[in-house]
Amino acid sequence: MIRRLCLVGTGLIGGSLALALRAAGFKGEIVGYGRSEDHLRRAVERGIIDGYQTDAAKAVAGCDLVLLAVPMGAMRAVLRSLAPGLDDNCIVTDAGSVKGDFVAAAREILPSLKRLVPGHPIAGTEQSGVEAGFAELYRNRRVILTPVAETDADAVDTVRWMWEQAGAEVELLDVRHHDRLLAATSHLPHMLAFGLVDALARRQESEEIFRYAAGGFRDFTRIASSDPVMWRDICISNREALLDVMHSYKDDLALLTRLIRDADGDGLLELFSRAKRARDSHC
Amino acid sequence: MIRRLCLVGTGLIGGSLALALRAAGFKGEIVGYGRSEDHLRRAVERGIIDGYQTDAAKAVAGCDLVLLAVPMGAMRAVLRSLAPGLDDNCIVTDAGSVKGDFVAAAREILPSLKRLVPGHPIAGTEQSGVEAGFAELYRNRRVILTPVAETDADAVDTVRWMWEQAGAEVELLDVRHHDRLLAATSHLPHMLAFGLVDALARRQESEEIFRYAAGGFRDFTRIASSDPVMWRDICISNREALLDVMHSYKDDLALLTRLIRDADGDGLLELFSRAKRARDSHC
Repeated sequence: MIRRLCLVGTGLIGGSLALALRAAGFKGEIVGYGRSEDHLRRAVERGIIDGYQTDAAKAVAGCDLVLLAVPMGAMRAVLRSLAPGLDDNCIVTDAGSVKGDFVAAAREILPSLKRLVPGHPIAGTEQSGVEAGFAELYRNRRVILTPVAETDADAVDTVRWMWEQAGAEVELLDVRHHDRLLAATSHLPHMLAFGLVDALARRQESEEIFRYAAGGFRDFTRIASSDPVMWRDICISNREALLDVMHSYKDDLALLTRLIRDADGDGLLELFSRAKRARDSHC
Repeated sequence: MIRRLCLVGTGLIGGSLALALRAAGFKGEIVGYGRSEDHLRRAVERGIIDGYQTDAAKAVAGCDLVLLAVPMGAMRAVLRSLAPGLDDNCIVTDAGSVKGDFVAAAREILPSLKRLVPGHPIAGTEQSGVEAGFAELYRNRRVILTPVAETDADAVDTVRWMWEQAGAEVELLDVRHHDRLLAATSHLPHMLAFGLVDALARRQESEEIFRYAAGGFRDFTRIASSDPVMWRDICISNREALLDVMHSYKDDLALLTRLIRDADGDGLLELFSRAKRARDSHC
């Protein structure tokens, strides 16, 4: 049971969870922790948190659960500031898109990993900030938890319960497996979209290019509107797995290029048909 | 003025134009030409055409304008079958996504290019067939016409008028310029999406990969549901320009890969921010 929850980060991810918990009848206290009093004050006004602390020890004192929903580049520093104040039984969870790096930081900073439940809600919009959160964000979305060998089973259950209250479907995965999977399904597509838009923007005729871009282009490049800081952090945190899938994608693109160069109609038709079938049956 | 229009192809592209012209009060006759009587009969039932012919000479006899809205791989053969029956003043236009190949075929087959007005409506859905057409498809969409040096100005005006009746915004571009521009804004993104979905589908853990794919992935890969035959034809027709942008994209991806490998946070942030700005300001 969670009686006092400390929310570190009251933007889209943390804010939406708090609003969803409230909507589901959560009766515990939600205390915000952060550096910007302005943000925290607005989070109180929006009903995201009950109150806030700008002092780490006061924020986590008496908490059953701390959720870190901050940019991944800030995770390590935040964890370091919170660690001394944590009760032995306080569960530590997060909402970062890459798990290996977070686990490594926790292993370095926390005295024990028994209460560590790394998590990744696969949800989001291109919006961010205190005003972006909404109670429905996690409804029918997947949240992946990646407990480590040391993690207590009851800590996993509590975090699972929390996300299920918010309407999410919770699944467990191994840390490395998660990072490899997400590199393929999320990080690589983002790289391709950012890369394409940037490449076109740097061309001489870029104004004209964007002028004639059709609807398909808009859909395809929507993810290139995502938060640059978040994506810088993801690239660096999941560098190894991401480089691996980028390397393998380069080979796939080389195959496609070869089929076009050889005007291999049968080969192209086969590849496009296989891709269409896969997409139509899964998405 | 168009008194008799011959529509070759009554699917999404041709059918939508005919329905839009009718909705705008077009009073001329619209005759369908094709090989499948079943398709043509259904097109009559849907009010797309007034009647049809399966004999090329009879179909184009007395026509002021012929629109070829068939897969690009079929353009050359269709043009060849129609050419002998065309009146000297009959305008020939098309709706193919690549213009260079169509112009080359016309140059080879038609006795004169005075009445040739190659065209490309930048519109479409993932649907196809006689049932897919709807009168609003071209509303506020761009149609690019690529007249050649020999084309009569009044022929361009007539085709422009026709598309404007359907609600489109018409612009003129040079043939080669059109093909290079579309290679960048449309053909390359389709290659990246087809390539990504196919690459993921061929992986061992493909079931799992698609299972954890989030909303961004769905948007990003929507265009990989497009018609494989159409895309085979586009790749072959616009081979040269497409290979050129794919080659240059490969370099862009190599730059991004290098930034990730070097964990160059500043470089990544700069690239992502530049891409986000370009997308947000243009799309």
